[in-house]
Amino acid sequence: MRNEEIPNPAVYRLSFYLRQLESFRRGDRHTISSRQLGEALGYSDAQVRKDLAYFGQFGHPGIGYRVEDLVHQLKKILGTDKISNVLLVGAGNLGRALLAYKGFLQKGFRIVAIFDADAAKVGKKIGDLPVRSDQDIASVAAELQIRMAMLAVPVAAAQSVANQLVTVGIKGILNFAPVALNVPGDVVVQSVDLALQLEQLSFRMTLGDASPSDESSL
Amino acid sequence: MRNEEIPNPAVYRLSFYLRQLESFRRGDRHTISSRQLGEALGYSDAQVRKDLAYFGQFGHPGIGYRVEDLVHQLKKILGTDKISNVLLVGAGNLGRALLAYKGFLQKGFRIVAIFDADAAKVGKKIGDLPVRSDQDIASVAAELQIRMAMLAVPVAAAQSVANQLVTVGIKGILNFAPVALNVPGDVVVQSVDLALQLEQLSFRMTLGDASPSDESSL
Repeated sequence: MRNEEIPNPAVYRLSFYLRQLESFRRGDRHTISSRQLGEALGYSDAQVRKDLAYFGQFGHPGIGYRVEDLVHQLKKILGTDKISNVLLVGAGNLGRALLAYKGFLQKGFRIVAIFDADAAKVGKKIGDLPVRSDQDIASVAAELQIRMAMLAVPVAAAQSVANQLVTVGIKGILNFAPVALNVPGDVVVQSVDLALQLEQLSFRMTLGDASPSDESSL
Repeated sequence: MRNEEIPNPAVYRLSFYLRQLESFRRGDRHTISSRQLGEALGYSDAQVRKDLAYFGQFGHPGIGYRVEDLVHQLKKILGTDKISNVLLVGAGNLGRALLAYKGFLQKGFRIVAIFDADAAKVGKKIGDLPVRSDQDIASVAAELQIRMAMLAVPVAAAQSVANQLVTVGIKGILNFAPVALNVPGDVVVQSVDLALQLEQLSFRMTLGDASPSDESSL
C-alpha cells in the first residue's frame, strides 16, 4: 500500500463503500460493477476504480467486484475483521455515554478498561467496569497489549493524557476533546467532530431532503 | 436544486470542500481550480466540478473558484451562515456531554433548551440551562420557532420522543440513539455513528498513516 498517497477523504470513502457493499449483500447481490457501486454512492465509476485501486486489485474483468470478497477485504483493510480492545480515559458524562454506546462492539471494538484522574471516581463501577486510576494506564495497556484509546477528558487535560497514552505504547487515539493533539509520527489521532453532523443535518433540511433513513449518517 | 438527485456522500463531501476551502482561505489563497481543490481532497477535477455543479454555477472560466465566494456560498447551502437554535432531549450522560461540547456554537448551533422525561431531573440546572419537562417541548419549540433537535435518549424512548418532536414541528433530528427512526417524509434524521470514527482510526493505524493532525476527522 502506498500510504503516503492516500488522501483523508479516500479513507472515509472506504467506510462508505463497506456500508454500501454490506447493504448490497443484505439484498443478496453477489457481484457489482464499479458503475453500480458508484451510482449508489454518487461517485463516477472511474472514482470507484481509483479509490479501490489504492488498496489492491479487487475487480474481475467481465464480472466486476465480488460483494462478499470485497466486504471481507475492506474489513481486513479497516482492521475490523476481528475484535479490538480499547481503553477509555475519562469517566465523566461523555465517558459514561461512550461506555453505554452499543454500536462499538457491533463494529468490532470492545472497551476493556476505563480510567479517570479523579480519586473520587476511582473504584466506582460503571456498568461492569470499575473506574481505575489513570496511574494504572501503563500496566493495563501492557498487560492487555492495547493499541487504541478513546480520550474523553476535558480540553485542559487532553494533551497530557495523550502524552501518557503515547508513552505506554498506544498507537491510535480517538479524540473527543475539541483540541488538536501533538503526538509522535507513529501515532494516529482521529478527532470526532460532532458539529459536522449538525452541519450535515442543517444542510439536508435546507435541501428539503426527506430521506428518513439511518443511511444519512453516511 | 435537484434534491432528488443528490446522493448522501455528495452531501458529506460538501462539508469536506468547505473545510478545505477554509483552510485555503487561512493560507491567503484567493482563487482555486477544481484540479487544485480535488488534489487536496483526493478527488478528480471532474468529480469536484460534478459535485459543485449539483448546487450551482460557482466556477469562473480562466479563474476557477473564488475561495471567499465559495466558502460563503457553501455555508449558505449548508445553512450555517447564521446561528440556529437547537433543542436537546435527554439530560443523561450523553445530553450533559453534548451541552458541554464547545464545538457546536463555533459552527453556528446553539442549544437553547434541554428536556427530560425524568421528573427527578426536571428543574435542575446543567450549566446555565434548567432541565425542563418533556411536556414543555411543544410550547418551547413554538415560542422559539425551533426546527432542529438533538435526540440523546435511550433506544427504548427514541421513537416516541421522535414522534413528539415531529408533532411540534421539528424538521431535523440529530439522532444519537443507535436505532433507525420512522419519521414523515418532510423530516430529516441524521444519525451519529460513533463506531465509524473508531473504524477510521483502526484503518489509519493499519495503514501506518502517521498524520497527527485534526484533519483526520475529515
